[in-house]
Amino acid sequence: MFTEVKNMKVYEQIINQFKDMIAKGLLKKGDKLPSERELVSQLGVSRTGIREALSALQMIGLVESRHGEGNYIKDNLEDSLKDPFLLIFMLNGGKFHEILEFRKGIEIETAALAANKIQDDEIVILKDILHRLDNAECEEVKVKLDKELHYLIAKASKNILIINLLNVNSSLMDIFISEARGKILSKKENRECLLKQHKDIVDAISNHDSFNASKAMRRHLDFIEKYIYNMK
Amino acid sequence: MFTEVKNMKVYEQIINQFKDMIAKGLLKKGDKLPSERELVSQLGVSRTGIREALSALQMIGLVESRHGEGNYIKDNLEDSLKDPFLLIFMLNGGKFHEILEFRKGIEIETAALAANKIQDDEIVILKDILHRLDNAECEEVKVKLDKELHYLIAKASKNILIINLLNVNSSLMDIFISEARGKILSKKENRECLLKQHKDIVDAISNHDSFNASKAMRRHLDFIEKYIYNMK
Repeated sequence: MFTEVKNMKVYEQIINQFKDMIAKGLLKKGDKLPSERELVSQLGVSRTGIREALSALQMIGLVESRHGEGNYIKDNLEDSLKDPFLLIFMLNGGKFHEILEFRKGIEIETAALAANKIQDDEIVILKDILHRLDNAECEEVKVKLDKELHYLIAKASKNILIINLLNVNSSLMDIFISEARGKILSKKENRECLLKQHKDIVDAISNHDSFNASKAMRRHLDFIEKYIYNMK
Repeated sequence: MFTEVKNMKVYEQIINQFKDMIAKGLLKKGDKLPSERELVSQLGVSRTGIREALSALQMIGLVESRHGEGNYIKDNLEDSLKDPFLLIFMLNGGKFHEILEFRKGIEIETAALAANKIQDDEIVILKDILHRLDNAECEEVKVKLDKELHYLIAKASKNILIINLLNVNSSLMDIFISEARGKILSKKENRECLLKQHKDIVDAISNHDSFNASKAMRRHLDFIEKYIYNMK
């Protein structure tokens, strides 16, 4: 399965073998990896090299070590890249408005994709979330449902890059506005505005109307953007 | 600067310290890191732990080891995340059209941002690239200039997330269509279409007309999308 490695840095060689095996479909989500001992003998490298490669793969959220069971390719890769992304964003002196701009770009197009690709069962869930959002009293629940709504729209786009990056982006946002989200939702007049906006988005997506889905999403994100900037 | 670490996995603790130091501005792009020996004594962890952390940081394109000089935080982080991104994309069974969809979402908004934020000197460069693209004969040069044009528009957006992700996305695209780009550009009728599209984009951005910049970018990417799908 794996073959012996030479020359380059050990961890690079191992990562390259992973790449090959993934590309060939030999290594899939949820798969158990050979033990460290087995990897050492299959690849003919040092245990240190193996450990370096494995920790690198853990750090990017690709491999998880289950206590007493060994190492696995993660089943759910939606949250991967969060840490690396955050580090690079900070090192580049990234500003909050860049996160919003980025989100806007992706999410407006995502609404259109979702309108084209959403399945009937997803529409039912989407409408249910909207209904619960309408009736929720507790701020915390509202924040949670709001996130769920946006997440489901991303999922309905069926685009794994978009799902992954909107997730990562959402956790970046949380760092900056963990409280802001609650504040926006807690004011009665905003609550009504936001509910109307969410309803327009859900309606357009449910009607497979990609043009109006994008438009409604843009209106929604413009509103949030303005609100956050005025708050600061 | 660094403090002793306990409990969690060693590499996780070290990464967390990096995060803190970056957040506090104590660690910046281009900075030299303490030697492995110094890190061992400052953090009170094993050399193995340090090596694991460093290789993880190298893998995500954040740290580079310069032969005989030690480890540095990279100066240029624009290409970071390429490898992790690719691995996760492959593991998720990502399809080529997802890359195009993602690019469309970001790049349409990026054109609008660029129109708002572009500086006069950037406009000069942008127009120069367009001019050279018009006069280039060799396919290879055209592909290179085409990429440069899109890259400069991303840079003019001044959004580091967008610059980073369009770079990563462009290298993902290359894997799928290393030849397609050349094929599109080599046909005379396409060449004229594309030149007109690029000209419209550059004109709108240079006039700080964000509405038409987005529109022209959408037209351009729709054209490419259609072409690539028909080619397959």
